[in-house]
Amino acid sequence: MDFSEILKDIKPDKEEMEKIHNLADKLINIIKKYSSKNVEDVLFVGSSARNTNLKGSYDIDIFILFNKRVSIEKLEEEGLYLGKKAIEELNGKYEINYASHPYIRGYVDKYKVDIVPCYKIEFGERIISAVDRTPLHHKFLIERLTPQLCDEVRLLKAFLKSLGLYGSDVKTKGFSGYLCELLILKYNSFLNLLEDAQNWKKKKVIILDDIYKLYGDIKFKEFDEPLVVYDPVDINRNVAAALSRDNYCKFIFYSREFLKNPKKEFFYNYKEIIEKNLNNREKGKVIKLKIPRDKISDDIVYPQLEKLLKSIVKILEQHEFKLLTYKCYLDENYGFIELEFLVDELPNIMIKLGPPIYNKKRVDSFLKKYDKVFVKDCYLYSFSNRKYTNAIDLLKDIINKKIPISKTKNVYLDEAEIL
Amino acid sequence: MDFSEILKDIKPDKEEMEKIHNLADKLINIIKKYSSKNVEDVLFVGSSARNTNLKGSYDIDIFILFNKRVSIEKLEEEGLYLGKKAIEELNGKYEINYASHPYIRGYVDKYKVDIVPCYKIEFGERIISAVDRTPLHHKFLIERLTPQLCDEVRLLKAFLKSLGLYGSDVKTKGFSGYLCELLILKYNSFLNLLEDAQNWKKKKVIILDDIYKLYGDIKFKEFDEPLVVYDPVDINRNVAAALSRDNYCKFIFYSREFLKNPKKEFFYNYKEIIEKNLNNREKGKVIKLKIPRDKISDDIVYPQLEKLLKSIVKILEQHEFKLLTYKCYLDENYGFIELEFLVDELPNIMIKLGPPIYNKKRVDSFLKKYDKVFVKDCYLYSFSNRKYTNAIDLLKDIINKKIPISKTKNVYLDEAEIL
Repeated sequence: MDFSEILKDIKPDKEEMEKIHNLADKLINIIKKYSSKNVEDVLFVGSSARNTNLKGSYDIDIFILFNKRVSIEKLEEEGLYLGKKAIEELNGKYEINYASHPYIRGYVDKYKVDIVPCYKIEFGERIISAVDRTPLHHKFLIERLTPQLCDEVRLLKAFLKSLGLYGSDVKTKGFSGYLCELLILKYNSFLNLLEDAQNWKKKKVIILDDIYKLYGDIKFKEFDEPLVVYDPVDINRNVAAALSRDNYCKFIFYSREFLKNPKKEFFYNYKEIIEKNLNNREKGKVIKLKIPRDKISDDIVYPQLEKLLKSIVKILEQHEFKLLTYKCYLDENYGFIELEFLVDELPNIMIKLGPPIYNKKRVDSFLKKYDKVFVKDCYLYSFSNRKYTNAIDLLKDIINKKIPISKTKNVYLDEAEIL
Repeated sequence: MDFSEILKDIKPDKEEMEKIHNLADKLINIIKKYSSKNVEDVLFVGSSARNTNLKGSYDIDIFILFNKRVSIEKLEEEGLYLGKKAIEELNGKYEINYASHPYIRGYVDKYKVDIVPCYKIEFGERIISAVDRTPLHHKFLIERLTPQLCDEVRLLKAFLKSLGLYGSDVKTKGFSGYLCELLILKYNSFLNLLEDAQNWKKKKVIILDDIYKLYGDIKFKEFDEPLVVYDPVDINRNVAAALSRDNYCKFIFYSREFLKNPKKEFFYNYKEIIEKNLNNREKGKVIKLKIPRDKISDDIVYPQLEKLLKSIVKILEQHEFKLLTYKCYLDENYGFIELEFLVDELPNIMIKLGPPIYNKKRVDSFLKKYDKVFVKDCYLYSFSNRKYTNAIDLLKDIINKKIPISKTKNVYLDEAEIL
């Protein structure tokens, strides 16, 4: 297939890139103007600085590199001061965001600008704060990514984004931009990567040639994740750590699907096509929970919602209700849990599994609790009445705290509504 | 507890026993009168001959022992002739029954008389027909069972009968009379047996002291059954082979229950009390199948009905219907299958498990069959419409042969009625 057509749609044009670089230059100049001696450098980093960004992504990352001898308090203070200054001079708005330490997120016209203070670290040195790696990542990539490779990175990103696999945040659990760039460095092209990926098995370990050049023949740390890509900047770190096993499998699956039938649609919100197809079907009974949430970062709220979903599913299954599908998602004010039932109603009778017959002691204590017992397959069982014959009743009692469930800090299940 | 009270109810009185022995003597005299030289002996065997029978069981077993040199055809011919003669002279009715070879079952007044021809075999000799062991069993027991032990056998039989565990037929899968007698020889009393049985684990192997005396220190054959009792007449035979694992476990369980609370009720149809208690509960939806059967021995029909039940349960479960309980039973004209459902209705959607994502070939062939596929837990799945949203519809199609099920010779599923 003709990728140049795709690239027309996904690659920012000259003008778009120039505007980004102009803004970045302005920001750097302002920051440098107000900097103390503590600041060693100010860098434009990230995909838009490296020419691997997708069209219409107006993200600008500016890193302020401090001398290692500066205290973290001093770094935070001056970092925030410089960030604010830069945004203010360009008449933007800003907020304070938190990664390993606070930084400024500004909005200037349509651009989202992150101004992040970090320490200046050399290759092979130990980092002080988690973001200190970023300038080194940038350096590593910029020295290796040719314009051709940059376009291959864009194809990969667009493909992944279209499938809902792009992003290493806690919701997506997919491929980070940096991971895409390293994969293209390894495989040289989008197609080569897919050709290989279609045959990946339970685990795939990728070591860039440069890593051998930089570190020699060292012993590599082992990781549990399905995809392991050693970070050339820190070989004790797996760049693909955030990728879930499900998404790893999806990547394998859709690599094959694309290679079998390489059509344009794969680059344009293909996830929606897949979901439309999957949703065009009969449904089991669907019950939704609408749960008030705190208005803080989704990155904090989403894992709590996900944990809640898992706990609720577990309780439902313990009560013999059966689910076909379940999922959770967020909007600004609420978390939503959507449960699709295979079985949401049960007769008012249940069979409780007791101990093996051979275990006299446990049999005796089971007999103290249950009356209608019988022997089957070497176990004692009992009939008893069911507490919940209806999944809704059970969900109500979970919400009413009549059934214990571990509390979530920023998601308020006890205020949930059943839809 | 006072077992003498129980014995009053379960032990035949003098008069009852005398009548049995009188009838047996008459039968033997008639048979001897008409016998050729081929017949070496005529014996009254079985529990009523050994004084281990229960009150009200009017079974008389007469064995005609032929010389080993007689052909099997000759044995059958003369055996049937003598049996008929004996019953006819006493104005009874008879039919020809089949075990390893044909024999006469007669009915004289209230007595059921089996007249069985067999070969006369000595201890340790190889048997010719399966029934040849019986006279040796009888000899072994009669030499060892004291009147006190006979009463202990009766207590055990009554206890087992009351629990539905007495009988080695294919329906009951319980303890044979001979097994009861050997167990009492081993343990000397009903209570001693129960005291030991309450602690039996997954497997219990019982070797009578007499076996060591008779055979020395030989290597014993291994058996898969949970209870192994070596037959002193043939140590390659497990007398408890017919006992199912469930009934073995029930015996352990009720031994404990009796010892904890030794009450009379255990000897008087306790199974009914248990079942009444178990049935006094809410029920899931119950569906019954009434299936025409041939009017031949239950021993032949019951295993077919049981096999049918298992096949039907398997098909129901494959279609995601869930059962709480199921059972089968017979009357003269019909076999009955009773299914109690936890889930008998399902939404018109199902999730089909496909191959692991890593298996490219199987994934491809799955994709040829299914359209709405998705990736989960490293497997491919698909949504599809359910063929049966209702268990009744599925059962109808099983009966209509739209769903293949292995045919049973004497049970006519295709003529079944759903109740």
